[in-house]
Amino acid sequence: MYAIAVHGGAGKWRSESESATLDGVRYAAEAGQGILKQGGSALDAVVAVVAALEDNPLFNAGTGSALNVDGDAEMDAGVMVGQGLLTGNVACLQRVKNPILVARKVMEEAGHVLLAGDGALRFARGWGFEDFDPVTPRRFEDYQKKRRELLEDAGSGLPYLRRLLLCQADEQAKGTVGCVARDVHGGLAAATSTGGVTLKLAGRIGDSPVPGAGNYATKHAAASATGQGELMMRFLTTKSICDLVAAGYSAQKSVDEILARMAAEVGTDAGMIAVDTHGNIGIAHMTQDMPHAYANASQSSIVTAMRVSSH
Amino acid sequence: MYAIAVHGGAGKWRSESESATLDGVRYAAEAGQGILKQGGSALDAVVAVVAALEDNPLFNAGTGSALNVDGDAEMDAGVMVGQGLLTGNVACLQRVKNPILVARKVMEEAGHVLLAGDGALRFARGWGFEDFDPVTPRRFEDYQKKRRELLEDAGSGLPYLRRLLLCQADEQAKGTVGCVARDVHGGLAAATSTGGVTLKLAGRIGDSPVPGAGNYATKHAAASATGQGELMMRFLTTKSICDLVAAGYSAQKSVDEILARMAAEVGTDAGMIAVDTHGNIGIAHMTQDMPHAYANASQSSIVTAMRVSSH
Repeated sequence: MYAIAVHGGAGKWRSESESATLDGVRYAAEAGQGILKQGGSALDAVVAVVAALEDNPLFNAGTGSALNVDGDAEMDAGVMVGQGLLTGNVACLQRVKNPILVARKVMEEAGHVLLAGDGALRFARGWGFEDFDPVTPRRFEDYQKKRRELLEDAGSGLPYLRRLLLCQADEQAKGTVGCVARDVHGGLAAATSTGGVTLKLAGRIGDSPVPGAGNYATKHAAASATGQGELMMRFLTTKSICDLVAAGYSAQKSVDEILARMAAEVGTDAGMIAVDTHGNIGIAHMTQDMPHAYANASQSSIVTAMRVSSH
Repeated sequence: MYAIAVHGGAGKWRSESESATLDGVRYAAEAGQGILKQGGSALDAVVAVVAALEDNPLFNAGTGSALNVDGDAEMDAGVMVGQGLLTGNVACLQRVKNPILVARKVMEEAGHVLLAGDGALRFARGWGFEDFDPVTPRRFEDYQKKRRELLEDAGSGLPYLRRLLLCQADEQAKGTVGCVARDVHGGLAAATSTGGVTLKLAGRIGDSPVPGAGNYATKHAAASATGQGELMMRFLTTKSICDLVAAGYSAQKSVDEILARMAAEVGTDAGMIAVDTHGNIGIAHMTQDMPHAYANASQSSIVTAMRVSSH
């Protein structure tokens, strides 16, 4: 009995891209489902799903990542296996095709849990990850437009940093991708990848590569979060979800409860998916949309939706 | 009613440096106690304490930080305020005198929670933090010796990365510094700073600048951890301590319980301090030593020790 859930980022999506977005999460979920059906590991499944979404320029991860204030794609990614609490993560990683594959290599080979920046890039090159430019024309235009707005807003009299923060707040972190899975052997894993938020400061690390914030797995549950990363880092969103599951909550009740607590304590720009050891899935978001896909024993054909219907 | 606890890092300290080490934590704790006695905030106190320890070359933070595999001091630091879950953190930050002051500036001004590497350095310079070389002759000799051992061990036939990991494991992360405080207004805060582990890979981020791992504060408790950072990042040590306090455990019972759970699930190279809203303090470690100092309502003159006496 396997289970898999995939998200393509909390936020507000343009209606004209809806069908391509849903195709994207469906296609990625199918790749993971195929691995799980054949008895493959949850780790292999979540990494394959996230790599597929990184390669899809519609999503804000890998190819098509959002650009920082310098116009660079600094990418964050993390993967975690529940059994043994093993995890690997990369942050502010430039010029590779699939940050999630580097994160997995960190887990397996680095002896560290999180590598950032040039050091992460050297590690990646050392393991044979080739030079790749993830910047797409669409993202570059987006960056130029927002950068122009930032500079033109000088007349408002607000200091530069204040204007920058307002630009970032407008943006939302739409398009982060994540996957959680339970394999037929009972293994749980989570993977999450993002380009972060447009116009973020160089060196800003979000929640995706921070275990317990945007990505976490235990022997009880696996969870991936999306939204304004700083909220998850302050609240420890995915760790909190896994703790509730361990305390006996269902996966769905856990994500609903954590979202409510976050709304009360830190903010509402968040969405999350989770899976438990029984293969139950939880999906919740406070943003307008969070494209997602899932399949499990009770629902073996993949279901996709732009938002949770009760939303 | 205030309370303050300070640690100078879990590990095994040389006996000849014991009195200087205890003087160091006492002097730093006094600086914090002075602020708290005058009605200052827990935030001001923990930052002052950690800055004092960063300036003391005996400890592995700020001046005297351990050097990475390239011979560079890449420093990590984090600060967090319980009320509102506000936090600022820097990672892989080079050439500043006090990383904890930059972390505080990130909390107050960046709009982000964690900045790393060159981006963090640019942020620091933009806010007036001047160029400073934190490398001490003692740390540089230490680095050269370990680097030589690493290279000479080539005859063992082990691959380079395996030898590097063995060197790091020998080292322990001794000398990380941290402070937790409760001010007379009921505010809680935690601050932690480190140079990490000698011969770490460039770009490696440890637990100190990761909220919930090496440093965390809520409205219920504040906690700081030390030891092999990767263990805290996988387990979410300080978040877990704060959760236990919220569930009704005393500060001491919380750190004892989390240390026991960590030993069962991830490993024993860890130590931690915590304070709760009532000003109760918890101190625990599995390593041989963890120099520490504390003072509170029931013990207003500062107590220092190299290890918890029941240890």
